[in-house]
Amino acid sequence: MIAEPILNLVRELKRLPGIGEKTATRLALHILRAPESNARGLAAALVAVKERIRPCSVCFQFTELDPCEICASQKRDQGVICIVEDQPSLMAVENSHSFFGVYFVLGGRLSPLDGVGPGDLRIDVLAKRVAAGNVREVVLATSPNVDGEATAIFIKNALQPYGVRITRIARGIPMGGDLEFTDALTLGRALEGRSPY
Amino acid sequence: MIAEPILNLVRELKRLPGIGEKTATRLALHILRAPESNARGLAAALVAVKERIRPCSVCFQFTELDPCEICASQKRDQGVICIVEDQPSLMAVENSHSFFGVYFVLGGRLSPLDGVGPGDLRIDVLAKRVAAGNVREVVLATSPNVDGEATAIFIKNALQPYGVRITRIARGIPMGGDLEFTDALTLGRALEGRSPY
Repeated sequence: MIAEPILNLVRELKRLPGIGEKTATRLALHILRAPESNARGLAAALVAVKERIRPCSVCFQFTELDPCEICASQKRDQGVICIVEDQPSLMAVENSHSFFGVYFVLGGRLSPLDGVGPGDLRIDVLAKRVAAGNVREVVLATSPNVDGEATAIFIKNALQPYGVRITRIARGIPMGGDLEFTDALTLGRALEGRSPY
Repeated sequence: MIAEPILNLVRELKRLPGIGEKTATRLALHILRAPESNARGLAAALVAVKERIRPCSVCFQFTELDPCEICASQKRDQGVICIVEDQPSLMAVENSHSFFGVYFVLGGRLSPLDGVGPGDLRIDVLAKRVAAGNVREVVLATSPNVDGEATAIFIKNALQPYGVRITRIARGIPMGGDLEFTDALTLGRALEGRSPY
């Protein structure tokens, strides 16, 4: 005997990842109590992303323009391509304000257990882009876990014939971290990757 | 250089309680990848609750009809009123399929620390409804914590002049619970509240 629009909102919220029955109910009740402009703002934002956002035909990041602002920018170094797994990774790199080249979104990482092979990523498209020339450096920014490292090695082998410079982001102790609590693998990698100081 | 509609969706999602920057970004990216119908369904549900849902003028639950389906139902015992703090509590009671009377939503619980006094709840409205007659029993279903118990005692005192039967939901060991791990207060209350078996 609960009003259908409330139950329907709970159902729609539950489709979102990591949101179960209780959280969805809590959110729905919050929305009921909050100003109407909040609900309308969120509703408009949801429709807007679906209507206005598409993958960039050059780098495959989600964008309103095609090519995206980064691929079209004169301020970005079009000769340096940062390879990321997905959009959240791209946003994290962009958020660091430390990269001034352009991107290429693979669309995932190699994962034999999940059935993701080289054919499921955009490695061919990347190879064509590198083969076309004008690329000086490829920065491999896949995650430093088993699948991400395997993906990095696979791409390195795929791009080696083109004679482009291939680099890998540093793996080491995170800023603010403590040597005492760093795992042996990370510490080993940090020592291997030491640089002149 | 991230597309404005994506950033806007993240901003709107961050207004929701318990959703920070990272969760909002994860949800936004999920929405981008999910079928368009999901985003449109959620957007429509958000607008619908704000357009179609109002508090019932009798029991103050959120409803599409006024009086709400429960207050208007011939199948519900209009002589038994369950007093709950808020809509989520009402939904929890309704979900137990064990209560067949009607409700009254207080709009919170007494909380001196948060500055919530008797004047901030709808105790006067409740007293008027009980005074009007036709009420046989009032079930106090506020939460069994300090504020909820204080609220129950306050309402009991406020309604006593009307000679209505006042009951309180049982406090005891939850179903599936273990005596060994039950706190002393709950166990004490469970013994006090024992019933013939």
